[in-house]
Amino acid sequence: MLGILVKRKVRIALFAGLGAAIFLTSAGLVFAADPSGADTLAADPNAGVNMAWTLVTAFLVFFMQPGFALLGAGLLRAKNTVNYMTKSFMDFCLTGLSYWAFGFALMFGGSAMASGLETGNPFIGLSGFFLTGDAYDVKTIMNWFFQMVFAATAATIVAGMVAERMKINAYLAYSFMIGAVIYPIYGHWVWGGGWLATLPFGAGAKDFAGSGVVHAIGGMVGLMGAWLVGPRLGKYNANGTPNTFLGHNLVYVVIGTFILFFGWFGFNPGSTLAATDLRISVIAVNTFLAGVTGAVVALYLSIIRTGKADIIAACNGSLAGLVAITAPCAYVAPWAAVVIGAIAPLVQQGASAIVEKRLKIDDVVGAFGVHGAGGLWGLLAVGIFADGTYGGVSGLIAGDTEQIIAQLISMATVTAWGLGAGFILFFALKRTMGLRASRQEELEGLDVPEHGIEVYPEHPSVVAPGKA
Amino acid sequence: MLGILVKRKVRIALFAGLGAAIFLTSAGLVFAADPSGADTLAADPNAGVNMAWTLVTAFLVFFMQPGFALLGAGLLRAKNTVNYMTKSFMDFCLTGLSYWAFGFALMFGGSAMASGLETGNPFIGLSGFFLTGDAYDVKTIMNWFFQMVFAATAATIVAGMVAERMKINAYLAYSFMIGAVIYPIYGHWVWGGGWLATLPFGAGAKDFAGSGVVHAIGGMVGLMGAWLVGPRLGKYNANGTPNTFLGHNLVYVVIGTFILFFGWFGFNPGSTLAATDLRISVIAVNTFLAGVTGAVVALYLSIIRTGKADIIAACNGSLAGLVAITAPCAYVAPWAAVVIGAIAPLVQQGASAIVEKRLKIDDVVGAFGVHGAGGLWGLLAVGIFADGTYGGVSGLIAGDTEQIIAQLISMATVTAWGLGAGFILFFALKRTMGLRASRQEELEGLDVPEHGIEVYPEHPSVVAPGKA
Amino acid sequence: MLGILVKRKVRIALFAGLGAAIFLTSAGLVFAADPSGADTLAADPNAGVNMAWTLVTAFLVFFMQPGFALLGAGLLRAKNTVNYMTKSFMDFCLTGLSYWAFGFALMFGGSAMASGLETGNPFIGLSGFFLTGDAYDVKTIMNWFFQMVFAATAATIVAGMVAERMKINAYLAYSFMIGAVIYPIYGHWVWGGGWLATLPFGAGAKDFAGSGVVHAIGGMVGLMGAWLVGPRLGKYNANGTPNTFLGHNLVYVVIGTFILFFGWFGFNPGSTLAATDLRISVIAVNTFLAGVTGAVVALYLSIIRTGKADIIAACNGSLAGLVAITAPCAYVAPWAAVVIGAIAPLVQQGASAIVEKRLKIDDVVGAFGVHGAGGLWGLLAVGIFADGTYGGVSGLIAGDTEQIIAQLISMATVTAWGLGAGFILFFALKRTMGLRASRQEELEGLDVPEHGIEVYPEHPSVVAPGKA
Repeated sequence: MLGILVKRKVRIALFAGLGAAIFLTSAGLVFAADPSGADTLAADPNAGVNMAWTLVTAFLVFFMQPGFALLGAGLLRAKNTVNYMTKSFMDFCLTGLSYWAFGFALMFGGSAMASGLETGNPFIGLSGFFLTGDAYDVKTIMNWFFQMVFAATAATIVAGMVAERMKINAYLAYSFMIGAVIYPIYGHWVWGGGWLATLPFGAGAKDFAGSGVVHAIGGMVGLMGAWLVGPRLGKYNANGTPNTFLGHNLVYVVIGTFILFFGWFGFNPGSTLAATDLRISVIAVNTFLAGVTGAVVALYLSIIRTGKADIIAACNGSLAGLVAITAPCAYVAPWAAVVIGAIAPLVQQGASAIVEKRLKIDDVVGAFGVHGAGGLWGLLAVGIFADGTYGGVSGLIAGDTEQIIAQLISMATVTAWGLGAGFILFFALKRTMGLRASRQEELEGLDVPEHGIEVYPEHPSVVAPGKA
Repeated sequence: MLGILVKRKVRIALFAGLGAAIFLTSAGLVFAADPSGADTLAADPNAGVNMAWTLVTAFLVFFMQPGFALLGAGLLRAKNTVNYMTKSFMDFCLTGLSYWAFGFALMFGGSAMASGLETGNPFIGLSGFFLTGDAYDVKTIMNWFFQMVFAATAATIVAGMVAERMKINAYLAYSFMIGAVIYPIYGHWVWGGGWLATLPFGAGAKDFAGSGVVHAIGGMVGLMGAWLVGPRLGKYNANGTPNTFLGHNLVYVVIGTFILFFGWFGFNPGSTLAATDLRISVIAVNTFLAGVTGAVVALYLSIIRTGKADIIAACNGSLAGLVAITAPCAYVAPWAAVVIGAIAPLVQQGASAIVEKRLKIDDVVGAFGVHGAGGLWGLLAVGIFADGTYGGVSGLIAGDTEQIIAQLISMATVTAWGLGAGFILFFALKRTMGLRASRQEELEGLDVPEHGIEVYPEHPSVVAPGKA
Repeated sequence: MLGILVKRKVRIALFAGLGAAIFLTSAGLVFAADPSGADTLAADPNAGVNMAWTLVTAFLVFFMQPGFALLGAGLLRAKNTVNYMTKSFMDFCLTGLSYWAFGFALMFGGSAMASGLETGNPFIGLSGFFLTGDAYDVKTIMNWFFQMVFAATAATIVAGMVAERMKINAYLAYSFMIGAVIYPIYGHWVWGGGWLATLPFGAGAKDFAGSGVVHAIGGMVGLMGAWLVGPRLGKYNANGTPNTFLGHNLVYVVIGTFILFFGWFGFNPGSTLAATDLRISVIAVNTFLAGVTGAVVALYLSIIRTGKADIIAACNGSLAGLVAITAPCAYVAPWAAVVIGAIAPLVQQGASAIVEKRLKIDDVVGAFGVHGAGGLWGLLAVGIFADGTYGGVSGLIAGDTEQIIAQLISMATVTAWGLGAGFILFFALKRTMGLRASRQEELEGLDVPEHGIEVYPEHPSVVAPGKA
């Protein structure tokens, strides 16, 4: 029923999108490239404060990289930690380069948001490659930087899902491709003026800071990676029940989560691209409230269920809350952020259980629940809780029943695109480079075979072999 | 003698405070709630840069949380580290929620500093609960965010003091209450336009960024917690002499201190709430100089005394310097910051010795010396070193003998309130939930009994049992 | 040949410098000290945003300190880690104080960039000591803070080079002196309006954010320290071939590198000292691209050479790229940043091999290659890739053949000054305090003899003695 509705609306949307395409490609809003910034400043006295805001918040988003690295390292066994750290470090490098060469142009070409981004259509952007020509401009390059750190975030989500058995060279190839193609395409549809942005429901599909564009994409692509590379040796028993492998350092887990939380204050408020958009204070507070509520709900759930205060559950709960508030952060009131954050760990834990127990996909760090399911919940929450005080976006609580349709279409699209593109990419890699380390390497741990060094060279990685 | 003086002045102050109360509650400065920020920006072209400054510095203060977490984790034995990390992670979550629901309203209601904060008196604020109604405003919410991260800092100071034996559920209850009530009340008196702010001495009690409001409160409340939960098993010998338990990771200690130092650049300069208040550069430099001087003095003291360069002493010395400069940072010249920072480790080490050896209270990480005693020294230093170049605050060196009276009253008040409220809270928790883990749990370490996991699951937490 | 050319040009430059000296000391641009900032703001409505930008980016540069600390700690053996962390923590403290007392005045006296800095000549600055008098000014103090964190960065580079055998007291004395004298002198010549800044070639010697002033100085001084303290016991075999000592924690190495990368976004874009200079976006992106390209080139080089993906090589490659882009970051286009970053790891690895195998100097963490050689490459790159779009600086690719002459002179000067001053300082320390720990202390590790504590008190620092 829902499916049929969505399909019909999608056809309407595609039609509307084509109209928008003609408009966009002919709009001809022309910017002259300004590599020194003098003209840009002369035209806008607020350019300084808004650029400072955008860059500083982008730096914070960049800093999420060590957050993901520490969180993942703590959740893994020591014997695979160098491998994971290498993936986590190199994915932002490769994604950065591929997003410079190709991704940004595919995502924002045709958006006409700054100089050198004039060419594109509702399905794909076609200008801005390599930041050359008219894209050698202070504002275009500012936008590139902000968008690039988001692409790198999506990329690194996958590292934890395929950890402890995917070969490094296959992972490096994946990293390049997600930044070059997979991430930018859905991104173009939502943020680059593409067909989802112009859906004729409510204000079009809305995703303020990337619950869908960044997190759901990462979660969906990673789910295909984890499925195609297969579960770790020993993860599933003969009868199909899963085993739990403990990580090796809970200090890393908590500090990693703290760092991610900190970085989210760049991710969400920075997405205004302007400090003169004073809604940034509400966005920061909504981000905070959803994150802490997710942690509190998850912690007390664990106490109720098991009598133990499960700090890993609390960390994942807070991250789920943060992912969920990412799309609606600008459109809702603080009380709604608390509600969205409270529901997030339920969604996350339910999804993780389905992945582990029903689908029997070995998502090592539980990232699908956090980023994939949490991201979808965030997209939906816009359609429910947007209160109409900002950006002309109103959800069910403000009496608007259209916005949620746009959100559902966007949710279906990100799921289909993320799973589909992820499948194709990892399937191609599997058939060419191969995805999986050898059985011997996996048992020994990937660090020495692939990197020639242990993570703690003075300590054998496996002290208590019975546990590892 | 001093006591009598203070008492007399307190009476005078209370009287003056009542007058101010009548004024404040009738002032009726009305703001219209502005949830999008458009009106606020139109009224103040600097609103963008000042909000960006306030938010970014608040993010830095938030980032002190992992600093406290790492510092404490390093100073504890591995077997209690998951417990400490859980407390450290959850206290900011629970304090954040209780400060959203209650604390902010009790602290800033009646201050009329922004929309929705009109109702209150010199003793308590009474509007702004849940950030609803007229408090759904970009400026009110910006203020909430900045103030909340300070409340969370006060809360987390206590975690290290009661570590290694306090039960997690009692600690969670404490966290909620300090953010809801204890922190906001003294905060209202000083920062919310309450009776200490309007004392008829000098410029009224001054505490620029919270030596008293944040640090002394945390130190005093934690002292009561550490006292009521009792010393760890084995801390004191039969003859009353204390034993030292080494922590488990000095890298965490130093990195934690670095992170805290970094966060202080948000804490102090951010407290202007405005980048257009250019004194921020002096504040940053004073903060830096006091922190490094504290470290240098403490390090050389250790070399002189023992021949060893004690890095833990240096870290605590730098933190004591940072705590001490927090109140006077805006009012003094750089040379004075060096002097304040040089004296801070002496105050801190003296206070810590008294707590450990005379009072026989087991303050595990030495936080009373740093935050409690360092905070009082900071309040006093305002009355001595304020040079009159900023905010109309002059101390003894500028020839003003009144300001120090206001500071002494504030010091007595924060001591009485912090100890009194802390005692009542922890006493109530002791009689209801109970504060202390069982003897068996404490010997084993709290991690497995309370959280079901060790901090380094591949390594037994106690490698060398004789040491632990 | 090159040497002769440089010598001749140096004579010309010295002559030109003398003329500039007369001009500078007589310029008499007078600022009135403004400790509150009210006058400064009234004179410049952008003062708020530019001060906020400068301070926030300075905070990020400060945060590089824990990056260096973690990176070095990970690359060392556990038994010397407390010693290294103490040096790493204390060097910024001591450099901060000596730069406050002396260094800043020697570096910026005569630059007339703000109040209280009027006196100096092309060779040395002579006003601004202790930030007193007319230097008690919001703008002067802002500049001090930004410059101080750079001085502290130069200082801490040396810690890793002399690690595992230099005594703590000698290192503390070195730290004070580099901030007081060595760093400021070359800094004055380039950034303080000294003779290199006014060379009559191109736009004078250019070093936007300190490839030479900060990194090459640190690398050169540290090379002398590492040479004079001698190689670690067991580093070289009887036949002169070097042995490799593995560090003890690769998580620290990668997280340290991430933190440094993050801090570089303060280092380079912040060096505009103004957010209203919109070139900051290009600077940030150039910084990013050079860093990631360095990592990618280094990683694939290691895969090609050894079949292993060497994460330490990738980290060093990214740092070499970051060091190299530091001088040219403002003057080049993004494509050039990629080229500069791609070449950087080749320069770094070549230099490190020469130091280790030819010069037989034991640079423990390989910092000479990264900071010394990488810094020289950065200075040269200005003369090649500057494209003339910013600051009037054009290199070979823009058809200008003069700029590179100024750069070569600056490279020769920083090499001579860094090596010369470093030699004198460490030689003097060797003859007075002594540089080196005893053989017994070195074998045992410096932590217990010098600091009285192990880094992981629950674990003996050497688990597998055969490895250490």
